[in-house]
Amino acid sequence: MSDIKRLTAKIRKFRDERDWKQFHNHKDVALSLVLEATEVLEHFQWKSPAEVEVHGRTEKEELADELADVAIYLLELADNLKIDLPKAIDRKMKKNALKYPVEKAKGRHTKYDKL
Amino acid sequence: MSDIKRLTAKIRKFRDERDWKQFHNHKDVALSLVLEATEVLEHFQWKSPAEVEVHGRTEKEELADELADVAIYLLELADNLKIDLPKAIDRKMKKNALKYPVEKAKGRHTKYDKL
Amino acid sequence: MSDIKRLTAKIRKFRDERDWKQFHNHKDVALSLVLEATEVLEHFQWKSPAEVEVHGRTEKEELADELADVAIYLLELADNLKIDLPKAIDRKMKKNALKYPVEKAKGRHTKYDKL
Amino acid sequence: MSDIKRLTAKIRKFRDERDWKQFHNHKDVALSLVLEATEVLEHFQWKSPAEVEVHGRTEKEELADELADVAIYLLELADNLKIDLPKAIDRKMKKNALKYPVEKAKGRHTKYDKL
Repeated sequence: MSDIKRLTAKIRKFRDERDWKQFHNHKDVALSLVLEATEVLEHFQWKSPAEVEVHGRTEKEELADELADVAIYLLELADNLKIDLPKAIDRKMKKNALKYPVEKAKGRHTKYDKL
Repeated sequence: MSDIKRLTAKIRKFRDERDWKQFHNHKDVALSLVLEATEVLEHFQWKSPAEVEVHGRTEKEELADELADVAIYLLELADNLKIDLPKAIDRKMKKNALKYPVEKAKGRHTKYDKL
Repeated sequence: MSDIKRLTAKIRKFRDERDWKQFHNHKDVALSLVLEATEVLEHFQWKSPAEVEVHGRTEKEELADELADVAIYLLELADNLKIDLPKAIDRKMKKNALKYPVEKAKGRHTKYDKL
Repeated sequence: MSDIKRLTAKIRKFRDERDWKQFHNHKDVALSLVLEATEVLEHFQWKSPAEVEVHGRTEKEELADELADVAIYLLELADNLKIDLPKAIDRKMKKNALKYPVEKAKGRHTKYDKL
């Protein structure tokens, strides 16, 4: 069974047992997704490239918790919007391949509209 | 096969074909995760609850693309940090269950430290 | 004397006394600006319109601290980039007036490119 | 006259001429503040320290517009919440001076709770 489906069902159950659907409109879930994403980013604030590398190893447990928080809201939002996330990722990566053809994008971090 | 594993391998391949690993340090990937999360949120800016609901249906395709962008950076970051994301989610949900016991949290959106 | 100038000088002095200029490159200051802005937003997470209104009154002190944090990085970033912030605001508001002419934008929250 | 007061009055007038107060509840203004802050950050995505430095000079006009957008929502939010922003900044900087005493914080980017 797909792990995304399994995790999504678990997240939905967790929410519904607490009767939280009433608060989990798309806007507040999207807002929460942003808040959790910034908690990941905060780990790297002010850090040099070398410090970032070290932190990624020494704080792996904490980072795993932060990434999980992002994932939980992401899976819930996809579920609420009736979006098939793996399919959406496959489709988006096809679009990205057209926006960033290997020969043009290789070794460059330029945005597609300036490539 | 796990769909998270399949998608992660695909994302890694996409990045490496473009020789982008050199730019994808944890800090910049976390930063990109935040930027993509805010693009999801932007869809709901200024909208009333009713408008949010309608938008979630009429703009489902666009929202699917935005969620996919968040997912792509999330899966890559987990991969780069050698974090097993499904395991991290399972573990975090156990912690959340302790922070938000059903009897205390039911029907309330209070943060755990004020419950 | 301009209060923005006075506050900017104070912020610069605070930073330099701590020898923090070495960490305060534009990228990390912009990143910090985002982190502080999300701390403001977190105050309103999951709250209904009525709860938002009440919170704005009962937590005014905490909100004042959060807004100050945003302002401090904003003034520092403008200073570091040698941007005259009041002038930039005046100029941007002129642009906004062209993007959102009163007759078209009145009573509507539509983005300018869809007006 | 204080430039913050002058700009705040101008921002309020701009909003009211468009009858936008109805949309500008604290939650949506805070959300907009976050969106604008991330537009500043996006300028520095994937850039090396040297590229960040160059970008800060070559894209000064665009950056001035982005900082102005942040400032506009910041001043409006303070106004809506009846927060005296210069006073809030002065007060917060006093708190920061206690959290980050020069002798302890000098030359270090450690967060106060780990100093």
